[in-house]
Amino acid sequence: MERRYIEFTTPESAEVVDDTVGAPGDDDVIISVHHAGINRADLLQRMGLYPPPEDASPIPGLEVSGTVAALGKNVSDFAVGDRICALTHGGGYASLAIARADHCLPLPDSMATEQGAALPEALLTVWYNVFERGRLASGETVLIHGGSSGIGSIGIQMARTMGAIALSTAGSSARCAAAAKLGAQYVANHREPDLLGQFSEAGYAGNIDVILDIAGGDLMQTNLDLAAQDGRIVCIGVMRGMQSEINLATVFMKRLTLTGSTLRRLETAERARCFQSIREHIWPAIINGTITPIVDASYPLQKVLEAHQHMQSGRHFGKLVLDCRLI
Amino acid sequence: MERRYIEFTTPESAEVVDDTVGAPGDDDVIISVHHAGINRADLLQRMGLYPPPEDASPIPGLEVSGTVAALGKNVSDFAVGDRICALTHGGGYASLAIARADHCLPLPDSMATEQGAALPEALLTVWYNVFERGRLASGETVLIHGGSSGIGSIGIQMARTMGAIALSTAGSSARCAAAAKLGAQYVANHREPDLLGQFSEAGYAGNIDVILDIAGGDLMQTNLDLAAQDGRIVCIGVMRGMQSEINLATVFMKRLTLTGSTLRRLETAERARCFQSIREHIWPAIINGTITPIVDASYPLQKVLEAHQHMQSGRHFGKLVLDCRLI
Repeated sequence: MERRYIEFTTPESAEVVDDTVGAPGDDDVIISVHHAGINRADLLQRMGLYPPPEDASPIPGLEVSGTVAALGKNVSDFAVGDRICALTHGGGYASLAIARADHCLPLPDSMATEQGAALPEALLTVWYNVFERGRLASGETVLIHGGSSGIGSIGIQMARTMGAIALSTAGSSARCAAAAKLGAQYVANHREPDLLGQFSEAGYAGNIDVILDIAGGDLMQTNLDLAAQDGRIVCIGVMRGMQSEINLATVFMKRLTLTGSTLRRLETAERARCFQSIREHIWPAIINGTITPIVDASYPLQKVLEAHQHMQSGRHFGKLVLDCRLI
Repeated sequence: MERRYIEFTTPESAEVVDDTVGAPGDDDVIISVHHAGINRADLLQRMGLYPPPEDASPIPGLEVSGTVAALGKNVSDFAVGDRICALTHGGGYASLAIARADHCLPLPDSMATEQGAALPEALLTVWYNVFERGRLASGETVLIHGGSSGIGSIGIQMARTMGAIALSTAGSSARCAAAAKLGAQYVANHREPDLLGQFSEAGYAGNIDVILDIAGGDLMQTNLDLAAQDGRIVCIGVMRGMQSEINLATVFMKRLTLTGSTLRRLETAERARCFQSIREHIWPAIINGTITPIVDASYPLQKVLEAHQHMQSGRHFGKLVLDCRLI
C-alpha cells in the first residue's frame, strides 16, 4: 500500500514523502490514518533532541486514529474498516500507520476520529504513571499538574472515574475554571506566586496522596511539601528544568516516593498490559461520555510546523491533532 | 520495680536518675537490660535536634538486650529469665526497659548480650528499607553505603543471606577490606575522588538495583547515576546534607524510585510485621552464625557521653553499645 508521510528535512522544514508499506506483521494492524495526535516529544524529535529508539519508526507521530486497512494473521479483535485509535511506535504523521493490535482501542460510533487521536498517549501515560507507578486508590487525592494539557485534561477525568479526588494547576484563571469544569475539585494558578500557599489555604497541602508532575525544576520541592504521609510523586516531564533541589529529610520523614517514567521506553508487553487495564477500567467511561477528550485544534498534516508552533506557544487547551486524510 | 536511667540534663551532661516501673502492659515485656545499642538518633535527641514522638519514652535508647523480668498477660512467646533483644519505643538507656513482645527476638545461647543489642535497629531498618520499600530480590545487586556502620555491617550480611550481590562504601582502605570480609563483593572508598568512576571501573555503575543511602547531600545524584534501569534508592539519613540536587531526567529515563523512611515514625503494627519477616528470613542465619553483629566497643552506661563522643568521631567499625548492668 502506498503511504505518504512527513519528514523533517531540517528542524524548521517538513516535506511530504512517498513510500510503500508491505504486509502487516502477524500481530499488527495497518491503519488508514484520519488523525494523528501531537505530543511534546514530537517537537523534541523534530529538533534532534529526542532521537527515536532504534526499533521505532523514524517517522514522527506516537498516536493515531482512523480505520483498519489491513490485519496481521494473528489479529482477531478487529476487522478491516473498524474505527480505532492506537499507540504507534513512531510513524503516526502519515496516511498509513502500523500498530500492534494490542495497542489499539475501538472507537465508539459517537466519537470523532479527531477526538480519538487525543486518547492513546494520554490514557497510557496517566494509567501507567498515576495508577500503576503511583498506585492511586479510590478515595485518595491526586494532583494532576497542567490541567489544560492533553495529559492533564484526560488525567483529571480518569482520576474522577476511578473514584479519586482530583486537584490541578493551570496558568490563568480561565484555564483554572476550565480544568475545574473537567472535574478537578480545586485548581491553583501556577503563574501566581506561592503555589504551596494556595493549596494550604484550600486545605490540601500535606494531604495529597499522588502528584503527577510534568514541570520538574523548582516545582519538585513544592510537590514534596504538598504530599501527604506515604505520598507518591510521579515525574513525567521537566518543562521547568531537569535539575531539582530537594530536601531528603522531607522524603524520609514523610516516607515519600519519587518516581517517574517515559512511555517511549516502556516495553511492548507492559504497554499491552496497560491497554488491557484501560479497556476494563476506563473505556466504559469513554463509551458513555463521562470522559471526553478535549481537542483544541486540528491542522492538515502538511501544516505540521504551524501546529508545532501552536503547541510551543502554550496557547492551546487540550490536544492538538493533525488531519492526515488530505495529503 | 526500681529502675535507674540516664537523663541528659543539658546536651553535655548526663545524670543517673531513679524511678519505679509499674506492671507491664498486656502486650509488653519488661526487660532487665544488659546492653543498650547506641544510634545516631540518640545523639540528635541529646542535642535537642530530634525530639522523641509524643507516645515514646523521653528516656533515650531505641534497642536493648537482656533478660525478661516481667510479662504482660497476653504474652505467651517468652518466659521470665529468657534472653532476648528488643526494639524499644525509647527508654533503652536504663536498667529496665519496656518493649512490645512482638518487637522482641530470642537470643541464641551462643550470642553475648553485647552483640544482641547491636541487632534490633539495624535488622529492622535494613529489612524495612531494603527488602520492603526497596523490594530487593534474590539475584539482584544492592549497594549498602557505609559498610563500617552498625547498619551497613549488618546490611551487607543480610543482603547476602537473601541471595543478593552486596556492594558497599567505606572511608579507608582498612574499612573497605573489613566490609569486603563481611561479604561485600566490591567496596569503594568514599573518601577518594570520583566514587562513580570507582564503581564504573569495577563494572557496577548503572547495574545496581537497590541503593541504601545514609549520606544524602551531594551523594544523591551519584546514586541516581549508579542505579540500574528500574532501580530503587532508599534514603535513611542525610549525614552529608539534607539538600540534594538531582536530575529528574535520570529519574524518569531510568524509571528510578527514590524513597526512604525513618523507623521512629513506623507504626507499631508495621514494626511487628517486619519482626515476623525477620524471624522467618533472617533469624536462622543469626542462629547459625552466618550473620554476626560487629561490636566496636562497650561503655558503662554512666560513660554514655564518652560513648557518644566515640560515635561522633567516626572512628568506630560496627556498633557501640552501653553496659547497663553496672549502675
